[in-house]
This record gives sequence, C-alpha cells and structure tokens, in this order.
Amino acid sequence: MSGNNLITPVILSGGSGTRLWPVSTDERPKQFLNLTGPLSMFQMTLERCQSSDLFELPIIVGSARHAALTEEQMDEIGTRAAAHILEPCARNTAPAIALAALACADPQALMLVMPSDHVIKNVPEFQNAVRDSIPLARARWLVTFGIAPNGPETGYGYIQQGSPIVGSVNSFSAKRFVEKPNRENAEKMLDDGGYHWNAGIFLFRADNYLQALGEHAPEMLEAAKSAMNHGHKEGHQIIPQEAAFACAPSDSIDYAVMEKAEKVAVTPIDPGWSDVGSWDSLFEISTEDDQSNVTSGKVLAINAKDNLIHADGFEIAAFGVHDLIIVASGNKVMIMPRGQSQNVKKIVTELQKGD
Amino acid sequence: MSGNNLITPVILSGGSGTRLWPVSTDERPKQFLNLTGPLSMFQMTLERCQSSDLFELPIIVGSARHAALTEEQMDEIGTRAAAHILEPCARNTAPAIALAALACADPQALMLVMPSDHVIKNVPEFQNAVRDSIPLARARWLVTFGIAPNGPETGYGYIQQGSPIVGSVNSFSAKRFVEKPNRENAEKMLDDGGYHWNAGIFLFRADNYLQALGEHAPEMLEAAKSAMNHGHKEGHQIIPQEAAFACAPSDSIDYAVMEKAEKVAVTPIDPGWSDVGSWDSLFEISTEDDQSNVTSGKVLAINAKDNLIHADGFEIAAFGVHDLIIVASGNKVMIMPRGQSQNVKKIVTELQKGD
Repeated sequence: MSGNNLITPVILSGGSGTRLWPVSTDERPKQFLNLTGPLSMFQMTLERCQSSDLFELPIIVGSARHAALTEEQMDEIGTRAAAHILEPCARNTAPAIALAALACADPQALMLVMPSDHVIKNVPEFQNAVRDSIPLARARWLVTFGIAPNGPETGYGYIQQGSPIVGSVNSFSAKRFVEKPNRENAEKMLDDGGYHWNAGIFLFRADNYLQALGEHAPEMLEAAKSAMNHGHKEGHQIIPQEAAFACAPSDSIDYAVMEKAEKVAVTPIDPGWSDVGSWDSLFEISTEDDQSNVTSGKVLAINAKDNLIHADGFEIAAFGVHDLIIVASGNKVMIMPRGQSQNVKKIVTELQKGD
Repeated sequence: MSGNNLITPVILSGGSGTRLWPVSTDERPKQFLNLTGPLSMFQMTLERCQSSDLFELPIIVGSARHAALTEEQMDEIGTRAAAHILEPCARNTAPAIALAALACADPQALMLVMPSDHVIKNVPEFQNAVRDSIPLARARWLVTFGIAPNGPETGYGYIQQGSPIVGSVNSFSAKRFVEKPNRENAEKMLDDGGYHWNAGIFLFRADNYLQALGEHAPEMLEAAKSAMNHGHKEGHQIIPQEAAFACAPSDSIDYAVMEKAEKVAVTPIDPGWSDVGSWDSLFEISTEDDQSNVTSGKVLAINAKDNLIHADGFEIAAFGVHDLIIVASGNKVMIMPRGQSQNVKKIVTELQKGD
C-alpha cells in the first residue's frame, strides 16, 4: 500500500476527566457520552472518517479499562477498526500515538491523529482541509490543524503561524506553540492575528513521527517499541506489554515532539469545533428550545428559560428558574449558575475529600 | 372509666397531598415523612400525646392503604394504639371522626382530634391549653383550638371568637367559621383581631360529637354506624365495612358539624404551629446552617446561601446559587425559586397530563 493517499485515522480515546461531572466519570468519560445528540463524541469521531475515498479503517487507542465500552460503541454504529490498541496505563498522547504508528502495516502510512472528545459541526470542511494537507504530510511535514479562535480562550494552547508553505493550498509553517495563556496574552494573540487553537489534530507519516520521536524523546520510542514487541494480539485488539509501556515518560505530543521538530506545518480550519470542555460550552453549541432552554432527557420546564437541564435517568421539573445548569446523573444532582461551570472541579475535589 | 378526665387522642392520618412533591406522594404522604427531624409528623403527633396524666392510648384513623406504614412508624417509636381504624375509602374528616367516636369504649370519652401532618414546637403550651379546656368539653362544649395568626394567610380557614366563656381559663364562644379568605379579607381579620387559624384540632365528648352529627348530618352518622357494625377487628385494627362507609357523604368536620352546632368554643393557642404545607413553610420553620441554607440528606453547598436543599437518597451539589428550593426524591428532581412553592401543584398537574 506504500505511497497510497488513503489516510489511517488514529483515534485517541484514552482521555478521562471530570469537567462534565456528574455525567462524565472515570467509568464513562466524556468521549463516550452522547451529550449533543444520539451519538457519543467517540462515535461522531468514527463517523467523521468514514469516507472511503479518503480513509482506511481506523486505529483506536484507548484505555484497557474502557475496552468493552469502546467495542460496544463501535458495534452500535457498525464500525470496524484496523486495530484497537488497549493502553495498559495512561501515558498521555505522545506514547499513545507511537503505539499507533508502530501498528501501521505501512511505515509510510498517513496517520490522521484525532482526539475523540471533540465536536466538529462542519465535517466536509474538516475533510477538505485534511485532503488539502495530504501532499504536505507525504512530503514529510508534521501537519497540525489550527482552529480559528472565536475568543481569547485561556483554556487552550495556541499555534502561531509562520510563512505560507509554497505549493500548499492553505498551510503555513508553524512558528511557535504557545501553552495555555493568561487572559492578557490571549487577547494580544487575537489582536495580532495569525494564531490558532491547538485542537490536538495532526496529519503525518507514521515513519516521520517515529523518527521525530527517536530524535526528541528516544526513551519514549524505546518503551513503545518494547511494549509492542512484548505485547500480544487478540483479534483486532492489540495489548501492549504493561511493564514496558509503563516505562514510557508521560508526555503530550505537543511537548514531546511538535514544539521541537523541524518541518511542522499548520493548516487553519474553522469547522465549528468545540471541545465541549464544560457545561457552559455544551450550552453554547446546543440548540435551544422555544423557551431558550437546552434540555436532554425527561425535563419539564415551566416559566423557566436559558437553562441547561440534563436529566440522565431522572425526571427534572424546573419552575421559574433561569440561567442555571441543572444536571442529574447516577445518584448525583448538580446545580450552578450558567457561566460558572469551570467550578465543577471544585465540587469534585470537595466530594473526594469527603470520601 | 366514664367521667374520668383522661383524654383519648384521635389522630387523623388519612390525608394525602402533593404540595411537598416530589417527596410527598400517594404512597407516602406528608404525615409519614421526616422532613423536620428524625421523626415523621405522624410520629411527632403520637409523641405529643404521651403524657400519662393526661392521655389514654390513642385511636388512629387512617387509610387502609397506609396501614402497614402506619404500624411500622408506631413500632419505630414504641407506641401502642387503643385502636387503629383502617378507612376503606377517603370520606374527609367528619366521617373519620365518627368512626373514632363509635370506637370509644366510653361514650363520654374525651376525644382530642388532631391532624397528623402538622408541627407544634411548644408541646407543653399545647398540652396546657388542652388541659385547660377539659372542663368545657366535659360540659358538652365542642372545643376548637385556634392558632394565633402570624400573617394574613389565605391558605387557612379562620375562627372568629365571640364572648369569653365564664369560668373557662381562656376560651371563647366561637362566633363564626370563615372559609379560606382572599388577601384583603385576611388582612382585615388581622386588623380587627379576635380571629384565629383553624388548625383542625378539637376536643369534645364522643357522645356530643355523635349527637351533633346526628342533628346536622344524620346520613353520615348512619353510614359510620353501619360501617362499624358490619366491620371486623383484627387485633387492635378495626376495618369498617367498605360498602357502608362509601355511603357516607364526604365532608369536613368544619362544614358538617362545627359551623352549625351550638356550644362551640375556641381556645386560642400559640404553640409554634405549622402545617408544613409547602416547601417554603418548611424552610421557615427549619434551622438554617451557617450558610443560611436548610439542608437534609447528602448535600454539598459551596458559595450557596438561603436555599432549601432536600436530598432523599441522592447527593446534591449546589454551587453559587441562592434562594432556591432544590428537592430530589425517587427519580424526580424539582428546582424553583424560594417563595414560589405554591406552584408545585402546577408541576404535578403538568406531569400527570404527560402520563
């Protein structure tokens, strides 16, 4: 297959987090929840790369703990995977992507690396930007996709574009990766222009990534190789050896590779992206009903407006309240004003103290 | 026992209602809930008449549907009953009290009729007023206890006092029963003075009540007698015959008897009474914590104040909200602003439409 232009989607589903507590939990993290429609974000990510003229079967990399849930969600939408790699422990994105690169049958396979806990509304636009970037990736660029920022967000990293890459459709050399900025710096970047949000979406050749990893994080590459060499397969599942993989330093692809590598490109995109990183961001990307509430599940709203009401196995009746986030799930209920959902972590921390 | 001055408490526990939805339900109405402390209002009512120099064992009149729950709650606090009458259907208070009067071994027994869904904070004051009224009841007065109104409530009936009864400690002839007034009339009564809330608490001789019933609602008396004559006993439980009891007109003691009878007295009391008729009234009589929240169950409140938070088998986390009523019970969650709990009925009505 060497040299063909089909892309191997690499879907990272190993994330965990509690920013959408009480719905997102360790047992069922955000990517497996269907907060925005009938499909989970993981399933939407799978569907985003179903176009047969562009994509091979995907490689899934996720936590061994969620293997059954992952397979179940793939089955639900009838998706097969080229491989499902079960991480025996969490080592952040750089080692996870190394496992996927090592699992590619073709060393020159084009890998489109995607988190599975984001929403992209305009899939054709996203796919077009990916298609346009294939020649760059073939030519050994490590391509990132930079999201057009719609505000001075302090929760994301930024990528500063450099010069346009000659011959590309709309890509730039990446001049600088900026860690999550403070408000002032975020505003300055927006004023200056030429900055994009780093959404963790990358396109590159497997061999290029492994080469860059060998240069900038050689012990990580060794650990990933050893884990794969001493691992085993069960059908399409690949189980890397835990002892070897545990030796990999835990680091993101941004820190371990992208910030240090040569020939890093950024392709700007604006495909209606959201990381649904909080209840407030879920409200923003959701469709309001005629009382301007965003509801899911069994909800009765009377004289209530501008609320996010999420009823998971419960019936929620809201009377005369406005601008609240009301979430019931498991045996937990959470209520807070809209605009304050960054404080969910404080609740989780307090509750853990009590345990 | 004829002529002794011990009182037979008659505790009416047949009420149902949804004003404290979703906690109060048909299966477990308000009187059986422990909303204000470790004991239910039914249990607190039982404990209110435990003083052996004043009270005989009580007669309980309640719905057959709640017989097991009633017995369970009596057992929990180690209370025995002289009789537990299981109403086969609901016929309001006048027929229920007739059953109790007919169950009294002594025709001249002094009955202290009490609803079981009220809270009385100052039990000694209540008992003293009852004690002071015994001579009146013995002298064939139908004594009501009138609660000192603390505001122009439109949710209660009022009793207007007439002349002081000579020889009584502090009782008046009852001049007039006023149905639930509108706001204007309620305010006028408060301005005029001499009006008391009708709390449904009465003291009279069994034979006097039955005689008044025979005069003013003879078909009700006949139905009650027939139900008892054709009923049966199982231990201390009395099961009136359903077919006969169903023939009793459904009416309150106020309408059927008290408004029409001669020799009706009112003894004013101010014993910290509340009917806990709404979530707002529960907030008012409850003790606030140091964030001025009233909470029960597993509640985490952060930067939240002046809320009523009731977690029944759930954990509720409230962040940054104020002046809300938040109640979770069964698989229901209700949220509304404080001061609006009269609207609970609207929610229940809406939900029933959906069923």
